[in-house]
Amino acid sequence: MIKKQRQLHLNLFVSPMGHHEAAWRHPQSNLDQLLDFSLYQRLAAKAEAAKLDSLFFADRVATSPNAAKYGAIGGYEPLTLLSALAVVTQRIGLIATVSTSFNEPFNLARRFASLDHLSRGRAGWNIITSGTDAEAQNFNYEQIPEHAARYERAREFLDVATKLWDSWEDDALVRDKEAGIFADSSKVHELNHKGDHFSVKGPLNISRGPQGRPLLVQAGSSQNGRQFAAEYAEAIFTAQQTFEEAESFYKDMKQRAVQLNRLPEHIVILPGICPIIGRTEEEAKEKEAKLVELSNPAHSLLMLSNRIGFDLTGYPLDGPMPQLPIQEVRGHQSRTNLIVELAHRENLTLRQLLERLAGGRGHRTITGTPQQIADVMEHWFQNGAADGFNIMPQLMAGGLEDFLDLVVPELQRRGLFRTEYTGTTLRDHYELPYPGSQFAETPVSTMTETNWYSA
Amino acid sequence: MIKKQRQLHLNLFVSPMGHHEAAWRHPQSNLDQLLDFSLYQRLAAKAEAAKLDSLFFADRVATSPNAAKYGAIGGYEPLTLLSALAVVTQRIGLIATVSTSFNEPFNLARRFASLDHLSRGRAGWNIITSGTDAEAQNFNYEQIPEHAARYERAREFLDVATKLWDSWEDDALVRDKEAGIFADSSKVHELNHKGDHFSVKGPLNISRGPQGRPLLVQAGSSQNGRQFAAEYAEAIFTAQQTFEEAESFYKDMKQRAVQLNRLPEHIVILPGICPIIGRTEEEAKEKEAKLVELSNPAHSLLMLSNRIGFDLTGYPLDGPMPQLPIQEVRGHQSRTNLIVELAHRENLTLRQLLERLAGGRGHRTITGTPQQIADVMEHWFQNGAADGFNIMPQLMAGGLEDFLDLVVPELQRRGLFRTEYTGTTLRDHYELPYPGSQFAETPVSTMTETNWYSA
Repeated sequence: MIKKQRQLHLNLFVSPMGHHEAAWRHPQSNLDQLLDFSLYQRLAAKAEAAKLDSLFFADRVATSPNAAKYGAIGGYEPLTLLSALAVVTQRIGLIATVSTSFNEPFNLARRFASLDHLSRGRAGWNIITSGTDAEAQNFNYEQIPEHAARYERAREFLDVATKLWDSWEDDALVRDKEAGIFADSSKVHELNHKGDHFSVKGPLNISRGPQGRPLLVQAGSSQNGRQFAAEYAEAIFTAQQTFEEAESFYKDMKQRAVQLNRLPEHIVILPGICPIIGRTEEEAKEKEAKLVELSNPAHSLLMLSNRIGFDLTGYPLDGPMPQLPIQEVRGHQSRTNLIVELAHRENLTLRQLLERLAGGRGHRTITGTPQQIADVMEHWFQNGAADGFNIMPQLMAGGLEDFLDLVVPELQRRGLFRTEYTGTTLRDHYELPYPGSQFAETPVSTMTETNWYSA
Repeated sequence: MIKKQRQLHLNLFVSPMGHHEAAWRHPQSNLDQLLDFSLYQRLAAKAEAAKLDSLFFADRVATSPNAAKYGAIGGYEPLTLLSALAVVTQRIGLIATVSTSFNEPFNLARRFASLDHLSRGRAGWNIITSGTDAEAQNFNYEQIPEHAARYERAREFLDVATKLWDSWEDDALVRDKEAGIFADSSKVHELNHKGDHFSVKGPLNISRGPQGRPLLVQAGSSQNGRQFAAEYAEAIFTAQQTFEEAESFYKDMKQRAVQLNRLPEHIVILPGICPIIGRTEEEAKEKEAKLVELSNPAHSLLMLSNRIGFDLTGYPLDGPMPQLPIQEVRGHQSRTNLIVELAHRENLTLRQLLERLAGGRGHRTITGTPQQIADVMEHWFQNGAADGFNIMPQLMAGGLEDFLDLVVPELQRRGLFRTEYTGTTLRDHYELPYPGSQFAETPVSTMTETNWYSA
């Protein structure tokens, strides 16, 4: 049997003006387009023309007057926007972030099944549990529930959602007009789920989507988050600052999957990278300096304080990062850890730390030529630290084109990335199996013959 | 001042195969298209070409194996589908039904604001409280909450949603790149709402849509439903079997609006009609007979039992409608009343009642020539029973074309319906005012000079 060369997977993390927190102030950014669908349609078309696996939108269900003052916020709800993008694109996967803490499984399973039908099999769900009090306060809570409690609810949520997606078997539809039989009712199942968080009778009120279930994506890196991802996730977005950390995370996740009787290649690991690309290294560094110059460190410090749940605003910008009571962090534990470790490892002042975080909030920034960026990607990919990357352009206007026009062709020249789509669904792109319905008498196996990961 | 002639408003109530319960079995229906977006896109394009005010999708958040056996069910979640239709249409309004009983105001207000931006001001919300135990059982309840309790929650839901839509004032966006100021934070408002059902801090995380708020639509006809509609609704869908009932409902709703200091023309009343159209009366009656022939009365009886919450399946099809304990109905009270009154007024057997309900579940069926149908519409419109109609074609393939190609031109010839759109938003089409933000110091008045209704 001829083994095909293992291929990188590339996801575009869309942020309308770009991921750098000062991107909106850049001369190239057009703020009138923040809610202009044609912007998103154009970005999606570019990513699709470059044969990327998928697009992805993050989400946060809160803002504040102060955040609106200093940042270009107030964009689309992800599933709404992806539903529209589904009908103006043909191949690229469409991944929406939605929280399990503030939604009902019936509603959400239905929306993802609808998106999967609408896109003909290109829906993906980035599962989050949400981590801030500000979000919880929009949903009847005083503060965000504890980390462990959120993951308990998320587990039950996934259990129910999976049953709902499976509640119509693949061959449930009969469509016999003569006999007046639309569906085989023995293949449409009630769940009668009664658990600690949810009671859901079922079945879902939409038949199974082309992918059976949407692609499940996760980004948690805490112990709870990793174990949850090992159980449910098929792709993982992760923030890793160094090769060593990325390698260790990669190995850990693949081992956890194997311990749960999953094939390691059925969990695709995608570290984030924030590329700043120049035709020369100097040009790249100039682009980076321009973005730093547009930043507002006092505001960034406030945002970082909100993010990690610890008030840093009284500390001098040119002093060191203080010690934090990490064990008391209720919200984004692992990201807070990463930030504190970065500051201490590299002995950064608060100002320097803010500059490092401004591009990707903890994701790795790579500033350089297309060859230098491709070298880092290839190194991580070929040495057990990544199956692909979550691309976070610092500017959407300009920065995205730089990546697609300069880095992608370089990866293709190296034989690391597809030059044509080989399938039609998001699962096809990520080489993930079709999940059979758990209610079917002979469920589809999740084992496939082609073991491309261990090549 | 020259008064323009008062114009009909026409909404297309979309059901993918048609509203008759046997439509899916008709030779013209293509069941493969139930989840085919191109079907919906084509229907929307036709309705837009005929200059209809809006499209509308009903919703119900439950089904059962038995319902799936005998009915072509399992379609799209309405907001998902309308988000996609928003970017392939230009003018027609897009109205989605969503329940206040099984959603969170923050999520829903955000989705409607997103749709309003995506469609450039064409979003509408048909507000329902849901009325069946089957739906409640998908959302952690044993049975559906009492009628009054559902409307209490709905009122608080609307209060919160309205504040969320208003939380960014119209002129909140500054977008000053040089100064690094995106929004005027004094014009972005927290709500700090704490009520019996919801605690929501706000602000919403998307800026105000082109319509300020989506068009609010309601269809309740019970006393609770009517009072709620008089307070919040800008358009009303209603099922009326006779001119006298429609006239009485119309008068009642306009009076309720006036008592709440609203202008009567700011509440647009749209009775449903199910047209079965032939070039001759005979042809229309043949079309109707064909649909009756395809019906399955035993299944229809079961569906009616579920709808009204009373088991009729033991009663003989050719016997009379039994007396029902109406006061015990928790769910769709007024519709159940209408059905019982219809059966008793016209002395119908159960079989005859089912035939009358098969087309529109209580909405008025009109079988005849385009002139006859236009006559009924004109009569209701000119004599205080309707401001327009909610059109429910019995077949989508064929029946919709009949209405658009034969009845709409007849209404246009009579000067009753527009031949071109005169505005761009759904509010423009319905001649409804732009609602200013309640947080603005000088709120926009809801009073307008043109009093077209009292002409």
